Amino acid sequence: MSRDGIRLVVVGSVALDSVSTPFGSRKDQLGGSVSYACMAAAFFGPVGMVGVVGDDFPRRYVATLKTAGVDLAGLQRAVGRTFRWSGEYEADMNNRRTLATELNVFANFQPELPDAYRRAPYVFLANISPDLQMHVLSQAEKPAFVAADTMDLWIKTAHGALREVISRVDMLLLNDSEARLLTGEKNPVKAAEAVLAMGPKYVVVKKGEHGALMFSRAGRFIVPAFPTADVRDPTGAGDTFAGGFMGVLAAGGRTDAGSVKKALLAGAVTASFGVEAFSVDRLAKITRADIARRLAQLRRMMTPGR
Amino acid sequence: MSRDGIRLVVVGSVALDSVSTPFGSRKDQLGGSVSYACMAAAFFGPVGMVGVVGDDFPRRYVATLKTAGVDLAGLQRAVGRTFRWSGEYEADMNNRRTLATELNVFANFQPELPDAYRRAPYVFLANISPDLQMHVLSQAEKPAFVAADTMDLWIKTAHGALREVISRVDMLLLNDSEARLLTGEKNPVKAAEAVLAMGPKYVVVKKGEHGALMFSRAGRFIVPAFPTADVRDPTGAGDTFAGGFMGVLAAGGRTDAGSVKKALLAGAVTASFGVEAFSVDRLAKITRADIARRLAQLRRMMTPGR
Repeated sequence: MSRDGIRLVVVGSVALDSVSTPFGSRKDQLGGSVSYACMAAAFFGPVGMVGVVGDDFPRRYVATLKTAGVDLAGLQRAVGRTFRWSGEYEADMNNRRTLATELNVFANFQPELPDAYRRAPYVFLANISPDLQMHVLSQAEKPAFVAADTMDLWIKTAHGALREVISRVDMLLLNDSEARLLTGEKNPVKAAEAVLAMGPKYVVVKKGEHGALMFSRAGRFIVPAFPTADVRDPTGAGDTFAGGFMGVLAAGGRTDAGSVKKALLAGAVTASFGVEAFSVDRLAKITRADIARRLAQLRRMMTPGR
Repeated sequence: MSRDGIRLVVVGSVALDSVSTPFGSRKDQLGGSVSYACMAAAFFGPVGMVGVVGDDFPRRYVATLKTAGVDLAGLQRAVGRTFRWSGEYEADMNNRRTLATELNVFANFQPELPDAYRRAPYVFLANISPDLQMHVLSQAEKPAFVAADTMDLWIKTAHGALREVISRVDMLLLNDSEARLLTGEKNPVKAAEAVLAMGPKYVVVKKGEHGALMFSRAGRFIVPAFPTADVRDPTGAGDTFAGGFMGVLAAGGRTDAGSVKKALLAGAVTASFGVEAFSVDRLAKITRADIARRLAQLRRMMTPGR
């Protein structure tokens, strides 16, 4: 695939995850925010991945990403070990515990956009430190739509830089607990409105298996999760959701509220596939037609009739 | 109002609740499943309330119910104290702790349908013991649609009787944790499908602030919660949801899937008002037009456009 065609760039972490769920354990599986987001976005069009891996990063994971259609011109290879995360999920999968985090080569990551990426109209700043997100933003030439994700760590340790990111992006995505932490508002609706007042056009509050809520000055939109009976590994669900969303938005080339809403539903459906297997295994197997079918099902489930 | 017009009968508990939330504390407020459900149903048409109160039950609460249009011919007055419940909510309102339960006159409650109620085509068995729910069912003459609610206590202590109720009703409503407890399935979708296999046409899994999911053999429907910024007392939200639903269903006189879906949305909106104040205070103040306005808002929030 030609890099000239890159309309969407995603920056974030690449990780080797060791994960335990009630359905089993997996060691050093492909993970990280940018891996999930790019695997999801690639269903809908070319996507450029910006991240860093160590010299231990398995070739088969490079193959997985390439086969999915992810452009790797922005993937740096550094000397040392790849970023590692390990965690385990409780029986109902709604709570997880981080067991260990090893930054490794990620500690010195400086994301650089290849020349061919700098004019990409769509940019997704997946979960990395707000300083790195700003560094990427400074390299992007007049993007049409920038979305950013974040996490509780940055809210606690890099509040000022995060506020700068929030004021510069079109959309911020965050968990409901993070929205509360960021704003001090206990009520999720009030918290989201307070984040909206910080600058973005859209705030998307993610609620895991319960879907998400989109807030904008023009109104709210309810993004239901697709009810799936087979949740085996929820890791990366939020990144998959955001990546699918950005992939659809970039493919459509429009940033109006209607396009944003429809793209959010497609993101939710993509995420519902992602959690059905460990790592990106399920995403590597399905097709865009599978997503379209489930999207039609979801829209029927949202339609009461006249 | 004439009792001849009663098309909907609701049986359940009447309580004096003492509740603490981050917004304050209230002692001996009007509560109980049948109180909330009837206050909600009464917006849409006549509703007959079957329950029991003690000789300490405040007259002003009788007035509240009557003013709302609730028919009290089935409300028994017994010698002794009214059923009492007390509980407190954590800061985010998603968890509550029961501090005390006093059954009092409720311990010997035998629900009896007045003659004028026995032919009501719509019956809602709100949360009471499955034995009492069966006793009510045996008095109803060929109802068109019966819904039942339940709770973890009955799943644990009256499993056989509850299964009998479930096999006899058109719809069972229960919390997601209760669906897991009842079926042993951890996944909420699998749990709901397992409940559906026990006999009802519809299973509604309630998820609190995240809305509900309806399962039927003909398909699923997502019932989003209306995102409200002012949650002051979530007590009775599930009863209000179910009561509003049954009120709309009874008023429409149709039990097809489309009518059920639309009535569920109206129930969700009614519940979103109920939680905005302690007890039934907010329900006592709003009108059916307020509900209609918010329902239109909710439907817009569910519509991505073409």
